[in-house]
Amino acid sequence: MKTSVVKQYTIIGLGHIGASLGIALKKAYKSKVNLVGIDNNSSTIKKARKEEVYKEVETFGESKLMVNSEVIFVCVGIEDMPKVFSKLSKINFKKRVVITDVGSSKLEIFKKAKKIFSKNFDFVGGHPIAGTEKKGFSNSVDSLFEKKPFFISGVIGSKQSAKLIAKIWRKIGSEVFLVDPRQHDKIFAHLSHLPHVLAFGLRKIVKKNLSQKEITKYGGTSFKDYSRISESSSELWSEIFLSNSQNLLKTIKELRAYLLSLEKALKKNSKNTLIKTIESL
Amino acid sequence: MKTSVVKQYTIIGLGHIGASLGIALKKAYKSKVNLVGIDNNSSTIKKARKEEVYKEVETFGESKLMVNSEVIFVCVGIEDMPKVFSKLSKINFKKRVVITDVGSSKLEIFKKAKKIFSKNFDFVGGHPIAGTEKKGFSNSVDSLFEKKPFFISGVIGSKQSAKLIAKIWRKIGSEVFLVDPRQHDKIFAHLSHLPHVLAFGLRKIVKKNLSQKEITKYGGTSFKDYSRISESSSELWSEIFLSNSQNLLKTIKELRAYLLSLEKALKKNSKNTLIKTIESL
Repeated sequence: MKTSVVKQYTIIGLGHIGASLGIALKKAYKSKVNLVGIDNNSSTIKKARKEEVYKEVETFGESKLMVNSEVIFVCVGIEDMPKVFSKLSKINFKKRVVITDVGSSKLEIFKKAKKIFSKNFDFVGGHPIAGTEKKGFSNSVDSLFEKKPFFISGVIGSKQSAKLIAKIWRKIGSEVFLVDPRQHDKIFAHLSHLPHVLAFGLRKIVKKNLSQKEITKYGGTSFKDYSRISESSSELWSEIFLSNSQNLLKTIKELRAYLLSLEKALKKNSKNTLIKTIESL
Repeated sequence: MKTSVVKQYTIIGLGHIGASLGIALKKAYKSKVNLVGIDNNSSTIKKARKEEVYKEVETFGESKLMVNSEVIFVCVGIEDMPKVFSKLSKINFKKRVVITDVGSSKLEIFKKAKKIFSKNFDFVGGHPIAGTEKKGFSNSVDSLFEKKPFFISGVIGSKQSAKLIAKIWRKIGSEVFLVDPRQHDKIFAHLSHLPHVLAFGLRKIVKKNLSQKEITKYGGTSFKDYSRISESSSELWSEIFLSNSQNLLKTIKELRAYLLSLEKALKKNSKNTLIKTIESL
């Protein structure tokens, strides 16, 4: 039987990341992989069914094919992950399945997965560094993960499952790194989450104090480096912030202390103190 | 006599902006303009003399030709401007001269210029939005001002002088805007100075808490949008911050309040409060 050698992967959540993953996988594996797409949103399901990417696109409860999956990519928002994990843990898959995700923070997801999944499941925490300010199915891009880092962070069960996930992400062009979930979250609090906090804050203050005309006309300065990331979804990012709140709170506190020092130096009119505040670690 | 129709412009301060202005003016006006370059630094003078841009390169006191200038571009750091203005005000120029500058804040410079220059001088405050993270003579680029905004902000004396300065900057490719110095400084506190404050702060906290290996390896994320501007000179920017401290202090205070609200929302574990803190003006 030919169908038995065709692998089946399922993507849950056909947003910007999930849908981009779908077309990237199709482009890389062609007929060697059957894809199942799962989403809650009927308009997304409609759009996805029109593309020659998925063998089936359904809501979670309606899918007939999901039970045949070898890999499940969970591409929902961080807040919804535990719910999806619980639902998956109750499915009687036909073969041993690897559950993997794409969440921007890893420790909390890893802890939840540990609690929820029994010995019948392998879990591989994943994080592609490929998000953009775009969102939704319609903004999917088949090259989104090419030459981008992909983090494997937090593995439960067989080590083979991590190798499989690494192989798949390499196949669609990513460079794969292995990092412990705790360290992952510390790193990305600094390199991604705090930068988003600051970009959102700058946008807020600029919009409050300048006219739209001034922003549009004169904003082609340092401000444009910030404006891309501040276009990101505040809802999505609020979930990410909450899922990494301990690390993020520490960085925010440090930034507030820095700003307070700068204020003091400005009020003292002291250039040397300003330079020291900027340069000292 | 042919020499009488050749105009003479002088550039004081051959750093990144001044030296780029020199080569841009030479490229645009060729033999129609004689350029005089003034700098304190002997190595800069040596380098500038090697280029076919300037008729004379000298220190301020040694220049023989500066007295023939029609326009003086003051391209020194903001802190040094009043000193240079005072020295210029004591020179007996052969014709009426327009003094103009390239400082990133405008109100303080405008006030100083008003105090220093007598009726024999015209002054036109100027600000090209073209700085990069680079500095120094060796990083000069003849296209630095092409398609970039140039602000005229604060005019003392004849209105003709502002027209002349606008014409010159348009000739080297800039788009010229007129803005009142007070409004200029408010706008750029938001669109440039606060962004620099935040980029410097992020760099400081990241360098303090992550290893250089982690920054280099994983920093190709949102962080890279910040890293360009945080490469800027902390000394140059400290002078800019001080010259616009009232506006900047107001924005920093607002940003601190925003961060404090975020901290509270994170501690309360409230997604809705987070979204509201990010979105509300």
